[in-house]
Amino acid sequence: MVRFGIVGCGHMGKGHTRSIWDGQVPGAVLTAVCDTCPTALKWAKENDSNIKTFDTATAMFDSGEIDAVLIATPHYDHPIIAMEAMDKKIHVITEKPAGVYTKNVREMNEKAAKAGVVFAIMYQQRTHPMYRKMREMVQNGELGEIKRTSWLITDWYRPQAYYDNGGWRATWEGEGGGVLINQCPHNLDLWQWICGMPKRVTAFAHNGKWHNIEVEDDVTAYVEYENGATGIFVTTTADCPGNNRFEVMGDLGKLVCEHDQLVHYKLKVSEREFNRTNTEMFGSPKAERIVIDCPGDFPQHPEVLRAFVRKINGEGELVACGEEGINGLTISNAMHLSSWLGKTVELPLDEDLYLAELEKKFK
Amino acid sequence: MVRFGIVGCGHMGKGHTRSIWDGQVPGAVLTAVCDTCPTALKWAKENDSNIKTFDTATAMFDSGEIDAVLIATPHYDHPIIAMEAMDKKIHVITEKPAGVYTKNVREMNEKAAKAGVVFAIMYQQRTHPMYRKMREMVQNGELGEIKRTSWLITDWYRPQAYYDNGGWRATWEGEGGGVLINQCPHNLDLWQWICGMPKRVTAFAHNGKWHNIEVEDDVTAYVEYENGATGIFVTTTADCPGNNRFEVMGDLGKLVCEHDQLVHYKLKVSEREFNRTNTEMFGSPKAERIVIDCPGDFPQHPEVLRAFVRKINGEGELVACGEEGINGLTISNAMHLSSWLGKTVELPLDEDLYLAELEKKFK
Repeated sequence: MVRFGIVGCGHMGKGHTRSIWDGQVPGAVLTAVCDTCPTALKWAKENDSNIKTFDTATAMFDSGEIDAVLIATPHYDHPIIAMEAMDKKIHVITEKPAGVYTKNVREMNEKAAKAGVVFAIMYQQRTHPMYRKMREMVQNGELGEIKRTSWLITDWYRPQAYYDNGGWRATWEGEGGGVLINQCPHNLDLWQWICGMPKRVTAFAHNGKWHNIEVEDDVTAYVEYENGATGIFVTTTADCPGNNRFEVMGDLGKLVCEHDQLVHYKLKVSEREFNRTNTEMFGSPKAERIVIDCPGDFPQHPEVLRAFVRKINGEGELVACGEEGINGLTISNAMHLSSWLGKTVELPLDEDLYLAELEKKFK
Repeated sequence: MVRFGIVGCGHMGKGHTRSIWDGQVPGAVLTAVCDTCPTALKWAKENDSNIKTFDTATAMFDSGEIDAVLIATPHYDHPIIAMEAMDKKIHVITEKPAGVYTKNVREMNEKAAKAGVVFAIMYQQRTHPMYRKMREMVQNGELGEIKRTSWLITDWYRPQAYYDNGGWRATWEGEGGGVLINQCPHNLDLWQWICGMPKRVTAFAHNGKWHNIEVEDDVTAYVEYENGATGIFVTTTADCPGNNRFEVMGDLGKLVCEHDQLVHYKLKVSEREFNRTNTEMFGSPKAERIVIDCPGDFPQHPEVLRAFVRKINGEGELVACGEEGINGLTISNAMHLSSWLGKTVELPLDEDLYLAELEKKFK
């Protein structure tokens, strides 16, 4: 059995705790929880009188009670706690985002590479059959070369009451951002997982535009990829009802994922080839519309945990390697930085500049 | 009867000629055509042996044969010919765009205001029942305050064969732009007609990205409005199959026009009001989905001509006043200028700067 400890018994931590208690993660047993809040520890003890409780991660790591840690603390602490666990040869699965700024996430990744432990990140949206299918089709070349990507992901509605609830939330010093760092890590990860990383980011992020918060709650971003493709990403927590429309346009057609449906517009010939050879002034390649069957369920967080346990036991692959958390975060950081500086930001990101600019925002 | 002359008997000019010949414009008679190409004049004469033909607009205007002129020449000439007609008290309807740069379109508008003639522009897309309905709903306040607009208008596919066809087309000196000036004037007009003018434009226009042309064939633009709303506009002539998805998000819900359907997501309470009063952390305003019935046909160009004739006869209103052509063109010019300078452009546009930058591109 893999003995789990959880750091951070808030909303997400409690959810994961229940998944393990409910037997949704075969081969895992929850032996310890850690939280700075006694109420959270009391809650755990009431549900499992054998559980060990700790008020610091260090004490839990040093207790010998756990083989693996699930980190569900506020974002800034993710890499700090993860690195300590790695040093102590404890397997790590961290909640998203991997951290707030890529500089220490990179350090975490470097440590992970040396530590010889399993390192995973809770990107449960990667278990969605439609996103898996999109990735598979893009990777298989079914869309050809990508020309344009577009994600209108504005259905993260949050009212002021949400922001008024948590003290660390929606502050630069407590959370390190708004909709980009809290709601969008999944989308930013899936975007790059399916379409690849951009090379250049220009973003327009508005702080406290719709809510009484310090951080951004409305973002429009434009990106360019190495191959010349372009992309847009639009998000907010104030549109209602918002959109979740993810499109990938390729040389061989496009995929549109919206309204819980994945539609493939498939060209008979490549557009680039058609463009070169066609002689009709108003000719265009013919497209077939196909609703793509995406079989399978959406096993979410428990599947990410199951894969993590399997990997620790030397079987199968992770849903998401922890090291990949830096990708979506890089895009997020680049969007912030572009917006703060009012200019286009090139990747690789200037990580020191990002951190310096972020720290300027601390009160 | 209103006696029409047409300047420019190319693709569009011939179409309008046929509309009048076919009796689709009651009260109008086509008495003259003007073109620099003898073949075009011969074509007109073969179809109507009574028609007067001219090889200059000046000669046609001075002939006493026409009361109204329809201008269907290359874009740069629209304002020049229109202003001459106005000076000679001839009513004017011009093809879109109103011109290539707002500086002389503004002069044309000033002249129109003094000339006492009817001045119209061929924005036939304004006769589309869905766009009319969208405008009506926005104007009636059914969406409340606008928060976001988005037009993904990438279904203007044009192969290289299209660009290879016309000598003046797709050059800075001959046409003054690419997809923005040729394909998108309707969309830019409708966008501002329905949502109002932006205050600030940032655009990323790529010249000859997908075709062997001088001008832009791929544009992504971000705009901000006076009230704080934001918007995006994405266009190209290379996506296949492209999109035509126009969305207006307001405080009271949203309209999405796509796939020949207009869908209204109607909130029971204003989102801003909900945000202020709700106490549920994950609460959100409830929305009803309504497919909007848009009765009426899409009478297109002939209706624009009929309204023009009625207006000359002192009845009814134009589909589009000629003076309004400057609005969409201002957005188009601002997108070009922003892209050329690599920075955000504020409106009102610096018209002299735009013209100077445009002229730098002439070969």
